[in-house]
Amino acid sequence: MYKIAFDVMGSDKGATVAIQAAVEFLKTKTNLKLIFIGNEQEIKQALVNNGGLDDSQYEILATTEIIDMDGSIMDVRRKKDASLVRALELVKEQKVDAMLTGGNSAAFIAGAHFILGEFEGVTRPGFMPTMPTLTPGVTTLMLDVGANVENTAEDLLGYAKMASIYSREVQGVKSPRIGLMNIGEEASKGRDLQKEAYQLLKADKSLNFVGNIESREMTTGVVEVLVADGYSGNIALKAMEGMGKNILRGIKESLTKNLYRKLHALALKKAFKEFGNRFDYKNYAGAILIGVNGIIFKSHGSSDVQSFKATLRMTLEAVENDVLTKMKKGMAE
Amino acid sequence: MYKIAFDVMGSDKGATVAIQAAVEFLKTKTNLKLIFIGNEQEIKQALVNNGGLDDSQYEILATTEIIDMDGSIMDVRRKKDASLVRALELVKEQKVDAMLTGGNSAAFIAGAHFILGEFEGVTRPGFMPTMPTLTPGVTTLMLDVGANVENTAEDLLGYAKMASIYSREVQGVKSPRIGLMNIGEEASKGRDLQKEAYQLLKADKSLNFVGNIESREMTTGVVEVLVADGYSGNIALKAMEGMGKNILRGIKESLTKNLYRKLHALALKKAFKEFGNRFDYKNYAGAILIGVNGIIFKSHGSSDVQSFKATLRMTLEAVENDVLTKMKKGMAE
Repeated sequence: MYKIAFDVMGSDKGATVAIQAAVEFLKTKTNLKLIFIGNEQEIKQALVNNGGLDDSQYEILATTEIIDMDGSIMDVRRKKDASLVRALELVKEQKVDAMLTGGNSAAFIAGAHFILGEFEGVTRPGFMPTMPTLTPGVTTLMLDVGANVENTAEDLLGYAKMASIYSREVQGVKSPRIGLMNIGEEASKGRDLQKEAYQLLKADKSLNFVGNIESREMTTGVVEVLVADGYSGNIALKAMEGMGKNILRGIKESLTKNLYRKLHALALKKAFKEFGNRFDYKNYAGAILIGVNGIIFKSHGSSDVQSFKATLRMTLEAVENDVLTKMKKGMAE
Repeated sequence: MYKIAFDVMGSDKGATVAIQAAVEFLKTKTNLKLIFIGNEQEIKQALVNNGGLDDSQYEILATTEIIDMDGSIMDVRRKKDASLVRALELVKEQKVDAMLTGGNSAAFIAGAHFILGEFEGVTRPGFMPTMPTLTPGVTTLMLDVGANVENTAEDLLGYAKMASIYSREVQGVKSPRIGLMNIGEEASKGRDLQKEAYQLLKADKSLNFVGNIESREMTTGVVEVLVADGYSGNIALKAMEGMGKNILRGIKESLTKNLYRKLHALALKKAFKEFGNRFDYKNYAGAILIGVNGIIFKSHGSSDVQSFKATLRMTLEAVENDVLTKMKKGMAE
């Protein structure tokens, strides 16, 4: 029986949405117990509202404090009974196999550093989301996307190693292709950081490094792992997300302008849904913080039921494949 | 009568497409003469193929060399008779009011620096495309998007000043809103470069600085000018372009999967076209290199007729509004 701690507080929509996702997710799982962490009253009420769970499927760890979206990273020191802090402590004490939260990113990263720390061989942890791509069956692990503002070439080499293990062990990719995000394909492109990282990646024969990848290929599916420094990784990810949202909004506005269009668009509902499933970021809402002593996932602050369910799925997959042990082993070698 | 030099060589599709665009563009213009620079034979043949032009509308400057996409920046020194070099020299000698090319970007930037140089007050030139946005009537000037790999905070302040003048004079925006591309909204976000640039921009009372803008807002239309360093600007622009292309490709694949879908999609042709016009990057295919002694535009290497026509339009607008003189004045103050 796996145990995962679920910080149900701190996200935009509160405990209700998180609990609904958990109840739905647990319906198909027999190997998992969730520890709900947060306001006891809210959790119990949300459980009742969603039809309840069998006692064997969950526990509640009642907490009194929350680090919300406006919270500071110092709150992880100040608020001893914050749901986020308690969840990370359960991971540290090995009372659970993993944790997830929809709460404050900065506090999540700072808390992980303070409470869990990095494992041997890791220079800096990295935030690693999974991106769906246009190529069927290919998703791309991208990191770092913002745990750090500055990175060294050694950090990027570490990311490539860890993500490569992750791709192999959790996603079943035999020889994950690794790309370095850069402004051009040639080895001479980029800032000093990228030039150095290119050489380190190329020299490491355990990695299937395919070279520089421009950000326009991020979602094409040409690599399973895309390595970047936290600053430009964050910029690229958000540029991509924003464009996606704006294009879909623009198309929707055009297609719903009058009844004629609405009717034809309705007839294409299945086609749009098909596309949506293929490229749906909510199905990959979770990002793991990689390099710390624990499997810890962050779901978007604005997570809905679908997003939380996806993050639960991703967290459980990481646990089932014992990826932390394998990454630790890989980095110690 | 304005004169613009058009380097018709060096782009992926050769002189034919460039000349076709020029012939179509000149149909509605009476105040413009184009100087076609390149292979005389090819240009003459393309003119014949496209119905010809009145003698008063054009001249040909025959050249024997080309700097193609694989060319190096040293070619601007070595190839004295390259069409790109000759076009820049016409600008320097003030024999034309501006130039445009679809050729090699790196050679274009290096050539501009060697042949034209920067004007007073400019620390580094910047590459500045115009982006359509979701907000009707709002386009966003973004810079630098890759003329430089490293920038200083002073560079970014200069970009804000020049682009602000450009937006006012060429695009008629009374008080252009200026944003600094960054990974978060707070002044404390980003690398040292962004933190410094934030303070410089805030301190300059001649600028309507609205603060940090995340890359997810690039195409929303919240600012008229978006300032970035060349590295992350390039990353953001390409991430956005790639996502746009991939989403549209994915939707198209879904909508043309069977006859039923094709028919309904056909019925929505007008709606898609409407959206396309609103968000069509080909209508803004040209990027100006700002900060050098001349109005010089670069069109995509893969430019088609629509793209070259758009770049011709943008170049002429810059000339008509005498924006170079105004930027020089602004930067000397």
